[in-house]
Amino acid sequence: VTQRNRAALEALDRADELRAMREQFELPPDIVYLDGNSLGALSRRTRERLAQVVSGEWGKGLIRSWNSADWISLPTRVGDRIARLIGAEPGTVIAADSTSVNLYKLLSMALQLDPPRRLIVTERGNFPTDLYVAQGLMTQLAGCVPAPELVRVEGGADAIAELLQQRGDEVAVVFLTHVDYVSGRLHDMRGVTLSAHAAGALMLWDLSHSAGALPLSLAECDVDLAVGCGYKYLNGGPGAPAYLYVARRLQDRCVPPLTGWMGHADPFAFSGDYQPAPGMLHYLCGTHSVLAMSALETGVELLLEAPMEALRRKSMALGDLFIELVDTHCGNQGLNLISPRDGAHRGSQVAYTHRAGYAVMQALIACGVIGDFRAPDVLRFGFAPLYVRYVDVWDAVMALARILREGSWDQPGFQARAPVT
Amino acid sequence: VTQRNRAALEALDRADELRAMREQFELPPDIVYLDGNSLGALSRRTRERLAQVVSGEWGKGLIRSWNSADWISLPTRVGDRIARLIGAEPGTVIAADSTSVNLYKLLSMALQLDPPRRLIVTERGNFPTDLYVAQGLMTQLAGCVPAPELVRVEGGADAIAELLQQRGDEVAVVFLTHVDYVSGRLHDMRGVTLSAHAAGALMLWDLSHSAGALPLSLAECDVDLAVGCGYKYLNGGPGAPAYLYVARRLQDRCVPPLTGWMGHADPFAFSGDYQPAPGMLHYLCGTHSVLAMSALETGVELLLEAPMEALRRKSMALGDLFIELVDTHCGNQGLNLISPRDGAHRGSQVAYTHRAGYAVMQALIACGVIGDFRAPDVLRFGFAPLYVRYVDVWDAVMALARILREGSWDQPGFQARAPVT
Repeated sequence: VTQRNRAALEALDRADELRAMREQFELPPDIVYLDGNSLGALSRRTRERLAQVVSGEWGKGLIRSWNSADWISLPTRVGDRIARLIGAEPGTVIAADSTSVNLYKLLSMALQLDPPRRLIVTERGNFPTDLYVAQGLMTQLAGCVPAPELVRVEGGADAIAELLQQRGDEVAVVFLTHVDYVSGRLHDMRGVTLSAHAAGALMLWDLSHSAGALPLSLAECDVDLAVGCGYKYLNGGPGAPAYLYVARRLQDRCVPPLTGWMGHADPFAFSGDYQPAPGMLHYLCGTHSVLAMSALETGVELLLEAPMEALRRKSMALGDLFIELVDTHCGNQGLNLISPRDGAHRGSQVAYTHRAGYAVMQALIACGVIGDFRAPDVLRFGFAPLYVRYVDVWDAVMALARILREGSWDQPGFQARAPVT
Repeated sequence: VTQRNRAALEALDRADELRAMREQFELPPDIVYLDGNSLGALSRRTRERLAQVVSGEWGKGLIRSWNSADWISLPTRVGDRIARLIGAEPGTVIAADSTSVNLYKLLSMALQLDPPRRLIVTERGNFPTDLYVAQGLMTQLAGCVPAPELVRVEGGADAIAELLQQRGDEVAVVFLTHVDYVSGRLHDMRGVTLSAHAAGALMLWDLSHSAGALPLSLAECDVDLAVGCGYKYLNGGPGAPAYLYVARRLQDRCVPPLTGWMGHADPFAFSGDYQPAPGMLHYLCGTHSVLAMSALETGVELLLEAPMEALRRKSMALGDLFIELVDTHCGNQGLNLISPRDGAHRGSQVAYTHRAGYAVMQALIACGVIGDFRAPDVLRFGFAPLYVRYVDVWDAVMALARILREGSWDQPGFQARAPVT
């Protein structure tokens, strides 16, 4: 192990193959931003693109820009770019709505594909909105025969496998988040997908915490369905549109419940009867926000310019460095690592519990180190490899060590609840 | 009738009480824009606000802006502004998702409120996406007992009344678009709502073509449910978020089918069980686009600075003037007015059929007069009273008269299909 000091890390940053990417982002100079897993940062290109969309396309082009600026094809254009990012074929991804709404579409559809199968299976620790969406669907369909049922297993992939062994022939779809939003633990996409398929069930992955941070190969893993979020590693801006993926073999086998004009085979014929557009288009419903989609398009575009293997390498190196520095500088200060130590089993984030987690995070933020807190006691640090530097990790851990050593989190003003992802 | 000429109309514009509003919009000087009913125009304030949201709130504030810039309350803040615009109480409107998705939420909910009632009633000429949404819901719930049924009557309010008389006790909800998207004909909101209530049914209005263009009083008319679009008269930008209204008495009587974390009573507790937030909040689902919501907020803000009575007066005057000038200058040229002549029965648009409607509209657009075309043969002109001038109407009709007289629409290049609202 080489001697760690700030100068050595500065040297790593100078030699970083992704260094030019960092320079595209407009991060405030006094901030260490370790929350790109909640909200990706703004790039110059995105700011400039938005100014052009607003003044030029909307302001001057007005309604004509639906054609002249090709606003109409933003969902498929952005979708095809995201497909490249997640190892999916062109024509299998479309950008639309929110992750929650897209998940609702796919779960509802999964129940229709093979009607005797009425179970929707997930794990108890799945991201809450994913659970809420499934619960809402169960309530809505409670009067159907047979009524669908949501099963939430305790204990991850093993528990899923056990459930599939016991009740596999009743399962319509298994849905999991690929990278756990708290611990950052990675599911084995290929393995779990295989076991769902062995039971005749569909497999749906939520890629919100993995797309853009690690290599994915949905096509090779033979994934059926997926959803994901645009505002984290994709840098699509706050509340960016989300996306959904449907394997080609399933695309035209049924129609999602949200049938709006943008998913119609011929929206501008204004026919009174719904006719689904072929392929991914019928997963659209209402009109998409051009501003939001344009920001997302630029975010994904930038990400695609960085080699995914380089992103993953740097992401693991940053996480490993963080853990190593916390081991060295924050020992015996009440921090417990809840993420896998082995970077290969981890997404692009590292989490610790601390009994005063919320106050510690507030104190860190007050020092300009932005991570986030997850109830009840988790400190979460994300390492978006596109713009986080090795010195950022150093500065963050030094600030954390100082706060813990001096107890400076134990101050008035660090008590309020944090109301955001 | 005073003598009409361009100079007289210039004088009207100079004396216009809404003149200062027009100056806030950044319309290209060489364009007559009569399509604000499809896509509202950009104001300087919106452009500046977006630049600030992008560079300041997102770029510098990053994740902190969910609190510091109060991104989190955008849906209720914008909703409460829209409530003022449509004569609804505070706390009865929220901005969210698209019109189609919001309609889906409310129709699904209407079916749950009084379960023996299984009919959803509308008119055949309702805006197509409204029909598609209802059709998708019917397909999704086809396996429920009893299965819901969509009834599309032919012939407007009278046919609705007749259906209510015959099968009123089976009707869960009647849903109509207040201003017809083709003819601009206004439904009698109070009367139709009363007759739905007399049958024990709920009344849902789509306000997409009325909000922001004419006074509405949802509270006084005792409306149950409503949805509407943000990108037309509200000037929220292309594909702006939509909104939904739920009368207070119904808000907590059931939960919509799309239950995501933004509608949870305590989203950041990350509980595994869905608990609906009180009031309108549980009509949210996923995370909202901050860029799109901010543009919408500014659009609505500007609209609220203009007295609604003045907007309506000017809107009717512009429409009346258009019809009068077409009568005078385009007689015997194959145009047939399909909008009510009486401004009191009309929204803020005027439509004509012409056998070569699409080519004529293309020729007009090529001259810088932007209206739109609706299949099969409709020329549609919108008069957003916030920024359309009397001289715009003059210039538009003069261009139309010239095109029709000279037959200059009958040229190659004016044939392609128009792919947008």
